[in-house]
Amino acid sequence: MSILVVGSVAYDDLETPFGKKERVLGGAATHFSASASFFTPVRLVGVVGSDFDQQQIAFLKERNVDLTGLQVQADGKTFHWKGRYGYDLNEAQTLETHLNVFAQFKPILPKNFQESPYVFLANIDPELQFNVLEQVKAPKWIAMDTMNFWIQGKLEALKRTLKKVDILFVNESEARQLTKEHNLVKAAKKVLEWGPKIVVIKRGEYGSMLFSDSLTFWAPGYPLEDIKDPTGAGDSFAGGFLGYLATHKGDMSEPNLKRAVICGSVMASFQVEDFGLDRMRLLNKKEINERFQAFKTLSHFEETIIL
Amino acid sequence: MSILVVGSVAYDDLETPFGKKERVLGGAATHFSASASFFTPVRLVGVVGSDFDQQQIAFLKERNVDLTGLQVQADGKTFHWKGRYGYDLNEAQTLETHLNVFAQFKPILPKNFQESPYVFLANIDPELQFNVLEQVKAPKWIAMDTMNFWIQGKLEALKRTLKKVDILFVNESEARQLTKEHNLVKAAKKVLEWGPKIVVIKRGEYGSMLFSDSLTFWAPGYPLEDIKDPTGAGDSFAGGFLGYLATHKGDMSEPNLKRAVICGSVMASFQVEDFGLDRMRLLNKKEINERFQAFKTLSHFEETIIL
Repeated sequence: MSILVVGSVAYDDLETPFGKKERVLGGAATHFSASASFFTPVRLVGVVGSDFDQQQIAFLKERNVDLTGLQVQADGKTFHWKGRYGYDLNEAQTLETHLNVFAQFKPILPKNFQESPYVFLANIDPELQFNVLEQVKAPKWIAMDTMNFWIQGKLEALKRTLKKVDILFVNESEARQLTKEHNLVKAAKKVLEWGPKIVVIKRGEYGSMLFSDSLTFWAPGYPLEDIKDPTGAGDSFAGGFLGYLATHKGDMSEPNLKRAVICGSVMASFQVEDFGLDRMRLLNKKEINERFQAFKTLSHFEETIIL
Repeated sequence: MSILVVGSVAYDDLETPFGKKERVLGGAATHFSASASFFTPVRLVGVVGSDFDQQQIAFLKERNVDLTGLQVQADGKTFHWKGRYGYDLNEAQTLETHLNVFAQFKPILPKNFQESPYVFLANIDPELQFNVLEQVKAPKWIAMDTMNFWIQGKLEALKRTLKKVDILFVNESEARQLTKEHNLVKAAKKVLEWGPKIVVIKRGEYGSMLFSDSLTFWAPGYPLEDIKDPTGAGDSFAGGFLGYLATHKGDMSEPNLKRAVICGSVMASFQVEDFGLDRMRLLNKKEINERFQAFKTLSHFEETIIL
């Protein structure tokens, strides 16, 4: 069953201690789609400018990403982000942000997209996220991402959107900023009172945690010797997580949610192995399955009564 | 089988956002002993001053901690540490350090201690650690801890001790400082070339990782809503880890090492629930077993081929 994603499509200039690349295909919706498409068909809604090279996303079409919702603004340029990472790859430093056509982005869902059973609202203005939900008819579940910029500037709009959302993805510092709780267990509990049934807190190389009323689950970050570029890791995580749920009729049972967290972790771990979408272009299902198994080796232990 | 620990016995003045306590029983050897004693008999070697209240460690004796190696220096005072934690409980700020009798500490092993099959060298001068090993006759394995102070000031002595050691415990920043590698996988590989068969990297609330030539294992930090005082978490971790191994004839097979990491995590998670040794005084085996099971719920998932 198809999953709808609404968010940015961008060009990134990236600098990490391991290299420098310019005009790399990026954006939350792009990263999400590339990741989720291994699991389920995706419908992308976004906007690009006249400078955008459609050839660069041709591989997404081949993977069942429906791009009819990708608007092209002939009189503008594509969203352009320039960022740098130090050895601590958990935190990006933004050098330049040119919103370009993204500044006036009004998400419009093609008619057949309005019937999407699953929705991912990538990190955009919470008012636009709300507006997207008004266009979707009867979604089985809705997930969203956000960022510090909206928490600081549009908290009320964000909370209004949160009320309609089943799953919230945030990183650790955003969870703290949003709830004003330093302790993550307390932070998650607070979010669960505001609407979502599930909160997923992403912690970079430290992995991620999922909280619901009855479940707390922890997934490791896959220990990689070479991480080239962490950009898009969070959206690849969401893509693996939600893509996996979508292939299982949206089933949010606890065993399925746990596997979804691992699928998210698997996809994020591949994403960071190369710049932009380079790793995703080459990735195959066998590798995904193998790494899923590797997560088991990494964190499972044989159970015994110890004392 | 008994495990020998050599290290500090101290009084701590502690300040966290959740309270303030003075002259709390602390020190690496004390925390290690309290934790390991749930699993196996312990032999403690350390030093205290004339101000030390032996009554405070009476409960350790009841738990099979042999204190014949605890020297009392009548002409001096006990090691006294004053520290503060902010909301980020991963990092302590040292306010005062009075080494007192610990400054001249010369570990002397009582005759029966020299036959100890298992040894934990808590965080002391690496030259003293080496000296302890010269007094131990035929240990089955040796584990050690260290800190930034020795990495910076006594690196050569530290590496000499490392050569004789089977298991190294370090925290994340120490691992980086010691190896000059930011990536932890690379850092662990480097340490494994220097002598130890096993490196355990402690990451505070983010859990811990174990590396050997053939195994990489990751344990979560137990998600607690109330952490009162992180002091001693690392030594409690080592106590649970090594105590567990010692009760299993020192078995360092991979399934046993994985369980040892979890036992370490379990004991550290209790340690931080209260100040000083307060939680350890009240803890019982049933609680330990239950939390061991809780770690399974937290990190295990049902395995399936996902794609």
